[in-house]
Amino acid sequence: MSNMYGRHFRYLTFGESHGKAVGCVIDGIRPGIDIDEASIQKLLDKRRPGQSKFTTQRAESDTLDILSGVFNGKTTGHPICIVIWNKDAQSKHYENIKNLFRPGHADYTFFKKYGIRDYRGGGRQSARVLAANVAAGAIAKKQLEKLGVSIVAYVKQIGAVKAKKIDLKQIGKNPFYCPDKEAAKKMERLISRIRAGGDSAGCLIEAIVTGVPVGLGSPQANKLNAEIAKALMSINAAKAVEIGAGFDVMGMVGSKNNDIFIRKGEKIVTRTNNSGGILGGISNGMPIVARVAIKPASSIHREQKTVDIKGKAVSFRVMGRHDPVPGIRGVPIVEAMLASVIYDAYLEYKAEK
Amino acid sequence: MSNMYGRHFRYLTFGESHGKAVGCVIDGIRPGIDIDEASIQKLLDKRRPGQSKFTTQRAESDTLDILSGVFNGKTTGHPICIVIWNKDAQSKHYENIKNLFRPGHADYTFFKKYGIRDYRGGGRQSARVLAANVAAGAIAKKQLEKLGVSIVAYVKQIGAVKAKKIDLKQIGKNPFYCPDKEAAKKMERLISRIRAGGDSAGCLIEAIVTGVPVGLGSPQANKLNAEIAKALMSINAAKAVEIGAGFDVMGMVGSKNNDIFIRKGEKIVTRTNNSGGILGGISNGMPIVARVAIKPASSIHREQKTVDIKGKAVSFRVMGRHDPVPGIRGVPIVEAMLASVIYDAYLEYKAEK
Amino acid sequence: MSNMYGRHFRYLTFGESHGKAVGCVIDGIRPGIDIDEASIQKLLDKRRPGQSKFTTQRAESDTLDILSGVFNGKTTGHPICIVIWNKDAQSKHYENIKNLFRPGHADYTFFKKYGIRDYRGGGRQSARVLAANVAAGAIAKKQLEKLGVSIVAYVKQIGAVKAKKIDLKQIGKNPFYCPDKEAAKKMERLISRIRAGGDSAGCLIEAIVTGVPVGLGSPQANKLNAEIAKALMSINAAKAVEIGAGFDVMGMVGSKNNDIFIRKGEKIVTRTNNSGGILGGISNGMPIVARVAIKPASSIHREQKTVDIKGKAVSFRVMGRHDPVPGIRGVPIVEAMLASVIYDAYLEYKAEK
Amino acid sequence: MSNMYGRHFRYLTFGESHGKAVGCVIDGIRPGIDIDEASIQKLLDKRRPGQSKFTTQRAESDTLDILSGVFNGKTTGHPICIVIWNKDAQSKHYENIKNLFRPGHADYTFFKKYGIRDYRGGGRQSARVLAANVAAGAIAKKQLEKLGVSIVAYVKQIGAVKAKKIDLKQIGKNPFYCPDKEAAKKMERLISRIRAGGDSAGCLIEAIVTGVPVGLGSPQANKLNAEIAKALMSINAAKAVEIGAGFDVMGMVGSKNNDIFIRKGEKIVTRTNNSGGILGGISNGMPIVARVAIKPASSIHREQKTVDIKGKAVSFRVMGRHDPVPGIRGVPIVEAMLASVIYDAYLEYKAEK
Repeated sequence: MSNMYGRHFRYLTFGESHGKAVGCVIDGIRPGIDIDEASIQKLLDKRRPGQSKFTTQRAESDTLDILSGVFNGKTTGHPICIVIWNKDAQSKHYENIKNLFRPGHADYTFFKKYGIRDYRGGGRQSARVLAANVAAGAIAKKQLEKLGVSIVAYVKQIGAVKAKKIDLKQIGKNPFYCPDKEAAKKMERLISRIRAGGDSAGCLIEAIVTGVPVGLGSPQANKLNAEIAKALMSINAAKAVEIGAGFDVMGMVGSKNNDIFIRKGEKIVTRTNNSGGILGGISNGMPIVARVAIKPASSIHREQKTVDIKGKAVSFRVMGRHDPVPGIRGVPIVEAMLASVIYDAYLEYKAEK
Repeated sequence: MSNMYGRHFRYLTFGESHGKAVGCVIDGIRPGIDIDEASIQKLLDKRRPGQSKFTTQRAESDTLDILSGVFNGKTTGHPICIVIWNKDAQSKHYENIKNLFRPGHADYTFFKKYGIRDYRGGGRQSARVLAANVAAGAIAKKQLEKLGVSIVAYVKQIGAVKAKKIDLKQIGKNPFYCPDKEAAKKMERLISRIRAGGDSAGCLIEAIVTGVPVGLGSPQANKLNAEIAKALMSINAAKAVEIGAGFDVMGMVGSKNNDIFIRKGEKIVTRTNNSGGILGGISNGMPIVARVAIKPASSIHREQKTVDIKGKAVSFRVMGRHDPVPGIRGVPIVEAMLASVIYDAYLEYKAEK
Repeated sequence: MSNMYGRHFRYLTFGESHGKAVGCVIDGIRPGIDIDEASIQKLLDKRRPGQSKFTTQRAESDTLDILSGVFNGKTTGHPICIVIWNKDAQSKHYENIKNLFRPGHADYTFFKKYGIRDYRGGGRQSARVLAANVAAGAIAKKQLEKLGVSIVAYVKQIGAVKAKKIDLKQIGKNPFYCPDKEAAKKMERLISRIRAGGDSAGCLIEAIVTGVPVGLGSPQANKLNAEIAKALMSINAAKAVEIGAGFDVMGMVGSKNNDIFIRKGEKIVTRTNNSGGILGGISNGMPIVARVAIKPASSIHREQKTVDIKGKAVSFRVMGRHDPVPGIRGVPIVEAMLASVIYDAYLEYKAEK
Repeated sequence: MSNMYGRHFRYLTFGESHGKAVGCVIDGIRPGIDIDEASIQKLLDKRRPGQSKFTTQRAESDTLDILSGVFNGKTTGHPICIVIWNKDAQSKHYENIKNLFRPGHADYTFFKKYGIRDYRGGGRQSARVLAANVAAGAIAKKQLEKLGVSIVAYVKQIGAVKAKKIDLKQIGKNPFYCPDKEAAKKMERLISRIRAGGDSAGCLIEAIVTGVPVGLGSPQANKLNAEIAKALMSINAAKAVEIGAGFDVMGMVGSKNNDIFIRKGEKIVTRTNNSGGILGGISNGMPIVARVAIKPASSIHREQKTVDIKGKAVSFRVMGRHDPVPGIRGVPIVEAMLASVIYDAYLEYKAEK
């Protein structure tokens, strides 16, 4: 039941979706760092529901409240407690599901583990809790940017619709954070159709991290790729993670998969990047490329079968908001989770110098 | 540069491929547990090279030496130090590569991180180091077996050859740990061809864990799926990890992906198992299904281009042993890594009761 | 710069004396535990200044605000965030000292470590921050009480005035938490005299923990006595810690210091308790006896010499409130810190069963 | 049941007094550090019994065996496993005590905790296990010396005999590591008398650490004084710990206890050092002064009463070697434990820069 992330850049999250607040405490941060609330708010806003008609309409402003650790806009070196108050917690929509286990959700496992059926919209298992991770990650992301490390994530696939081009300028121009204009149009049609049917679709998020120094990560117990896999698999509904060529390695022989080292000016780089920027658990200076597959939303507006707390077979239908591809909002979460892990590895790397 | 695995079942590994020994210290283990050296040795032997003509021929006996923590075959509650002495360290084969960075290997990242070019066959980045993890994992696996939890891994795919049947009885009958007799034959032909060409192939290992209690794992920072992803991605050459339906979620709508709960006798189970036994980071009692993709061996017997320590372009050819699909030996490693992570989660679960 | 306490019962504190709030997040707590806010408030009130004329008059109500982890008065198993809002932060009294290093205080070390001269009454180094520890410890204390473990602390000595009797009923009857009625009267006279002179005195707090099961603590790295020493030395102004006979062991030969084991009904006890309830780092079932010496308050109302930020010699006089023996308020802190450490050891002990 | 020390300079110890070996694994050490085996051996030799007629005569050579992490005399950045093989384990002397609980020893608490009566001279609770800590601490000490930090410990008191002068040159000239020539003579007479009577005496070890940078330690959860208290209290038989003026603060008013800051050349120092070099949990650049009281040896050669495993009252007499003041050998242990803690704090300090 641990809620602590990271070792060097480490934070503890707290809060439930329908309690007073969600938040985090960042421990061990250096003094004198500028805390740019606007950049944190921006990443939080990107995750926030209700931004477009394609996401759930819960009306939370998700405004930051920093209780400690920041003085005159700078870190003091002491723990930063960030609170995001809950305002629009509509428990009423949960009445009809309070005694049953929704398929695909954590209702059953939470009930068995904690002995409590917290029917209020997910409680601690809600994706809303990840707003706390986004806040912490936004701070890490800002620090990385100052070091020349840039992280960008986007939706590469929804259902069977794949982005065929990666044009980063397109990402902000459509509600799907899709880097391919044509694919975005198809995604819109797909989602409209799926929504009309009361159903949902999965999506694939890809992230590219550039400017990473050579040497981040540990060779054994905390390999950088292992930490990235953990971070991305910690996102609600994640089912698979890839680094570099990922599953495609199966179709390559070694002589093709091996990335040849070449000299480029003063630097040593690789001609290809099948390794996704990591060799032996350690960054090699090439862009880190990671992907995470998010399953279709479990909350659908079709009648579903399940059992109730007493094991009796029942049918039910989710009411209220319908968010057919919540994975889209995973884009800022992926950026935040990656930022935390990479900044953590950077701090370790720096400490070891 | 951490080398500690786990929190409740935790161990620290040490040692280099070409030093005196590799080993581990298991900390925090309960007293009175039977330590069955034969079962540890069995898993170590499964990982050990030279078992068939399809793997590298390094002749290590990989015999256990337990220095502490066990008295009359039982744990004392104090740290167990296990040493596996190195005997067959042939540094001579490394002479021609000592000043260059082999593609696909960690030579370059280690050199940049540690300032040392340890050319002796990999040193700390060698897969041999994982023998220590196998020893620790074998102890966890044995404990899980007593609790009714069974872990079995096998090779599901090599190159383009896929197992189409999962017949667990077949696993021990072919050198590829393949559960499909026909596929095993094809794998043999594939490897022979690839070896003849001096090249290598990737493989996919699948593991199934049955008998897992409901409730293992944390809902946020240490989700069971996240810990599994980290453990499997910690295996040398791993590039992708899947849980349950994995990347196939992209092809399913929510109404198909959701696993319907049904009652089966006294238990609540799911009709399908797309979730792979984990919901909201917590085990749901269904079999845990995980897969890891291992890239083709970086050491091939074809001429390759690269740069040397000074950045000069060079060509080279690896000499000595040739192991075209070392990922096969990942099977016991996958079992060990999963055992460690699941036993760790079990101990946490038990502590929380 | 870690702010995390404990391993099994663990909490992170945050907040500064003159910021918005101080607080803590308790991570890893079991579900279904009753959270009795009144008992937490009671221990907080005991620490709170302004309770008698003998302590500082800062008027903080120190009221609890639980943001998460508690539902209908019971823990949910998720992190408990407790906030204690700051209300009476009078920074004005700090104007005349903002550019100098007060002797005995952490002004100089904080300035050198953090590069910030946070003159607002101590910021993170203020004893007020320990209110967060008291809140967490109060929860641990309540859990221990349910297990039959009782913790009581009292002031054994102020300056040269020592309690000669330990009558626990007296503790609540005087503002010094002194277990000896006569000594309490002398303490009153002593403090009045010291206060009149603008000076301060040190004090010795003793704690007795009864009902501890045999077996708490680790034999090496986390000995129970070592954890207690750390916890008590973590209290602001602590300079020495004793367990059992403490420094008096110097006056005893082994044949006198050894506590003889005897049988008492079904139990094995020791005739004397020089060990203070701990042998080999592990509780032996006898009362745990610990003491901590708190130095005289550094804030005195006499003119003092020091240097300013530029190293220039200056004289100054502290203004505002005067608390000549703030160590008295260490009594609830000692109880809270001990409760946290012993409950932590208890949870480990239980987990190992 | 944790056996891990430290966070930045961290090591895990293993081994029992009468098993194959004791040892440690140091994790997270930087690459390129010179490992001077002679300096480690020197500190180990200082702890080793049998050095003079005043200590136990167990004939262990305590020779280092480094299994990993060192290549050509330098650290590789990977874990260092150090083994000290046991050779002279005379279990025979333990026959007559195998079924009883020796007063002052951990026999009873270990039996209750682990369910095992390991009568072989103490097993894991033996002070011999601390040889592993000495080896790790010796490495830390060497690193600190390169940074200009010097640690020296000595025996300040045995029974009622106190050193009145601190002449560091005397420490190596008598078997008691006593800095006062006259006191050393008295100690010799005292020990002879106590030994003749089959009894034992306690001792006080003082350590002085000079050259410490300003800024080591955390302000809350890992105060430097708290870490020192924990480290010293982790030494077998320790019963009390002091920093700076320690218990003497009780006899001082604040105006006397406060150390006045003055300028000395370019540095800010304090005129007195009652704080013992630490303010607010953070080093202030003055010498760190710490003391630990070690109780009289529990193993005495007089008849003692106790109970056996079944609770029956019995009398017994310890046979074999007699070491009336084993605390003397605590001197190198104190140096090692302090070195580990201060180097750990130094690495954190450096990481935070």
